[in-house]
Amino acid sequence: MALIVQKYGGTSVGSPDRIKNLARRVARFKALGHQIVVVVSAMSGETNRLINLAKEIMPEPDPRELDVMVATGEQVTIGLTSMALMELGLKAKSYTGAQVRIVTDNAHTKARILSIDEERIRADLNAGYVVVVAGFQGVDESGNITTLGRGGSDTTGVALAAALKADECQIYTDVDGVYTTDPRVVPEACRLKSITFEEMLELASQGSKVLQIRSVEFAGKYKVKLRVLSSFEEDGEGTLITFEDSENKDSNMEQPIISGIAFNRDEAKVMVLGVPDKPGIAYQILGPVADAKIDVDMIIQNMGADGTTDFTFTVHKNDMTKALGILNQVQGHIGAREIRGDDKIAKVSIVGVGMRSHVGIASQMFRTLAEEGINIQMISTSEIKIAVVIDEKYMELAVRVLHKAFELEEA
Amino acid sequence: MALIVQKYGGTSVGSPDRIKNLARRVARFKALGHQIVVVVSAMSGETNRLINLAKEIMPEPDPRELDVMVATGEQVTIGLTSMALMELGLKAKSYTGAQVRIVTDNAHTKARILSIDEERIRADLNAGYVVVVAGFQGVDESGNITTLGRGGSDTTGVALAAALKADECQIYTDVDGVYTTDPRVVPEACRLKSITFEEMLELASQGSKVLQIRSVEFAGKYKVKLRVLSSFEEDGEGTLITFEDSENKDSNMEQPIISGIAFNRDEAKVMVLGVPDKPGIAYQILGPVADAKIDVDMIIQNMGADGTTDFTFTVHKNDMTKALGILNQVQGHIGAREIRGDDKIAKVSIVGVGMRSHVGIASQMFRTLAEEGINIQMISTSEIKIAVVIDEKYMELAVRVLHKAFELEEA
Repeated sequence: MALIVQKYGGTSVGSPDRIKNLARRVARFKALGHQIVVVVSAMSGETNRLINLAKEIMPEPDPRELDVMVATGEQVTIGLTSMALMELGLKAKSYTGAQVRIVTDNAHTKARILSIDEERIRADLNAGYVVVVAGFQGVDESGNITTLGRGGSDTTGVALAAALKADECQIYTDVDGVYTTDPRVVPEACRLKSITFEEMLELASQGSKVLQIRSVEFAGKYKVKLRVLSSFEEDGEGTLITFEDSENKDSNMEQPIISGIAFNRDEAKVMVLGVPDKPGIAYQILGPVADAKIDVDMIIQNMGADGTTDFTFTVHKNDMTKALGILNQVQGHIGAREIRGDDKIAKVSIVGVGMRSHVGIASQMFRTLAEEGINIQMISTSEIKIAVVIDEKYMELAVRVLHKAFELEEA
Repeated sequence: MALIVQKYGGTSVGSPDRIKNLARRVARFKALGHQIVVVVSAMSGETNRLINLAKEIMPEPDPRELDVMVATGEQVTIGLTSMALMELGLKAKSYTGAQVRIVTDNAHTKARILSIDEERIRADLNAGYVVVVAGFQGVDESGNITTLGRGGSDTTGVALAAALKADECQIYTDVDGVYTTDPRVVPEACRLKSITFEEMLELASQGSKVLQIRSVEFAGKYKVKLRVLSSFEEDGEGTLITFEDSENKDSNMEQPIISGIAFNRDEAKVMVLGVPDKPGIAYQILGPVADAKIDVDMIIQNMGADGTTDFTFTVHKNDMTKALGILNQVQGHIGAREIRGDDKIAKVSIVGVGMRSHVGIASQMFRTLAEEGINIQMISTSEIKIAVVIDEKYMELAVRVLHKAFELEEA
């Protein structure tokens, strides 16, 4: 007998029929003797409907009152889900975030969980109930309703699993697991049976959209065993996200060196060329950009031969014009020769804990791209990731050849 | 400066534009220096939408879970209403029933209010906020969400007014007050400037649908000054429902003897004819009917000359066939000659505290009906009401001639 937290997203509860399907799945787990906590999102489309309704009254909705409204989305789903379980003869009971209580800070629309009072849930589980909890929402110390921001239901699921010391937190989505890369780009992409948290974090932040990154961090922090599964498949195993340390991982002979390939084309490149190479120059360039609340991803600086340096960084495409405007204002002050932007770029990353102990991964990546005539514009590395920026038009080609070069078809 | 509770029903919050109208009205009261608590219902149609959604999952929805779902209707409205007030530059803050806290018993879908913690509301009012409270809902001692049943938002308004010792509780509806009778039947019907609680109770239970009867009882118990107003009119005075005692009332020379005429055609007549006139017979007839959970309204028994008696009572039209079936089963046992039903009847009542001290009201009523050739089938009286059952087809005629006979056009 295990204690399992199952989280179902908006499409899994998108209609009465979908909710009945969900209930049948829960009933199968219950029949195996497990204790089940179900976390549900709002029915797909409902959150947006409520936000749009609010905007008809107040173009920039008051955050406290918006949370009051938006939290009703999951509240409807917990009632429906509990009833669907009862129709199958199970004992079921619903809780809003406030009822649990899931206590958050008071940062409305993007609150963070501070604590969970799991006592009532545990009592209900012991009394044989399936407990159905509204995802995405909580309550602050003063009793105000809060929401966790988009994708927050994943975080609720993981946080509940942590508080209850659950054996597993299962995240049901419309994909059946984490893949070596996006199957729409590489039809040979394979589902990974398992992936480490570190890899998952890199994949998530590099553009893989299976899980909300905050929930992965949370799971890592509290060592919650996390599994991504399809809500449309009967007996899928999904992908297990493990928190084994790297030594265990390396000892696994079958573990591939590279777990997956992520990519995105949401970024643009900003180049500050011919800057005098002197201390403080990086701050003089990035300070004004940060002051304008523009997030910077990759940063690269190369020293030139003539005592000047070229400074390049990437921002979200939507921010490129703004960033260029800011730099044009300070160009004279920093003494840059030229400021230039390019939004026709893509970032491709290979991720894997195995690369830590294997030399030559980077050179294999670069050779593979070179063989296809793909020029690398920027390189950035971490312990378990190598990311390159290339011309946008080569993105799919790069992902395909790298997928093949690292033999991910056989993962 | 007064403290006013204003309750707005489903049609008054039926669309963003209606809610903006409501906010403008509240702002006018606020500008006069009043403290305002706004109680709102769900947007019109929303409660039924949620109930139907629940029924798609569970044909007879679980009461606890149904309450969880249905309570979201008002929760959306309080958010929207608060934002509409903020858009007009007012400070506003919303509360669900659970947040107030409005504590009820745990009779889900028809809970009764036990207590209200008005402390936070009072603090907000003193800090200059308009406080917006979700009607129709509360929370039981264990923190389960409850609802008060249909029309329960009126009760929330009155209960809050009682707890806050408000100067007035204003109920905004789609009519502009209480009328001497239904203007659709008698175009000359007049709005009453005031009416006593006792009269209002009789009118409400006799088929006038302006206010939920429970809220009127509640207002009477806690001496809350209640006013019914139109949400579509700028400066209406509505009808004030007073709790003056009858002596004050009688001393008012201008007070009409009759306040209004109520009617309904929802009842059917059940006749048990030729029953032996002996003790216990009424119980033998009505016992089985009550056991079948059929509500009985009027009851009349007439002794005949031959030692038998005729027993007649009225039930809701929907229950007539069931009641007849039950009585046919016991006919032999009670020794009745015949059992007969008639659902082509109507009940017409005249109501007024003034009739207590005026003789001849009943005879005037009966004469008026006789002059039109309308036969009276049953008569029932209370301190401040005389009700008659007549053939359904004469109902409108009876209401019109009585309205004229008691000079209600000039009320």
